Amino acid sequence: MNKDLKISVLMDFYGQMLTEKQRESMEFYYNDDLSLSEISEHMGITRQGVRDFIKRGEKQLIELENVLGLAERFEAMNNEFINITKIIQDIQTHDLSQDVCDKLKEIEIIANKIKEDL
Amino acid sequence: MNKDLKISVLMDFYGQMLTEKQRESMEFYYNDDLSLSEISEHMGITRQGVRDFIKRGEKQLIELENVLGLAERFEAMNNEFINITKIIQDIQTHDLSQDVCDKLKEIEIIANKIKEDL
Repeated sequence: MNKDLKISVLMDFYGQMLTEKQRESMEFYYNDDLSLSEISEHMGITRQGVRDFIKRGEKQLIELENVLGLAERFEAMNNEFINITKIIQDIQTHDLSQDVCDKLKEIEIIANKIKEDL
Repeated sequence: MNKDLKISVLMDFYGQMLTEKQRESMEFYYNDDLSLSEISEHMGITRQGVRDFIKRGEKQLIELENVLGLAERFEAMNNEFINITKIIQDIQTHDLSQDVCDKLKEIEIIANKIKEDL
């Protein structure tokens, strides 16, 4: 069983659409990095049961993204933010007035805040 | 029946989760601004049937947003973009080198592009 890192991104978007057991087992697996055996012990279900929850959950998240594509939209937006940050850093190497520097800093703070919220 | 403009935003996010009939009637109603009677004629179902499709669809979209909150996340991001654009317009009133002006223009283009994609 390979851990697909994209799954944790999809969990952030669509995790609330999963059943509680699916979400719980997937959070243990993806966010807390527990093994199937550890999760099995924690949740008091068989290792195979845990695997089934995770597999079904993954399938559901992928299907939701195929239909809604919102994670992809967010990612595209995030990339644009990275571009904006790069250009600002470039401008900051120029000789600028204090006022312009302050305003660029403001933009940088907003861009970073958005990236963190993503 | 009041047209809630937020519904068209939610349709953009979650419309693919509706049934085809729901989506079709809601698109006629919200995007094409047809009346219930006109939609009824178009779709060959009763006016009450159209109303039911729309009402059920609206309820589903609102429930999805309550659970996932993705439209709200996008909106918050969009507001930050508007802030960035405002700060750039402010910086542009300063005395700047051509190179800095060009780079600010680049940021503005990216911010506008993202806003359009939202």
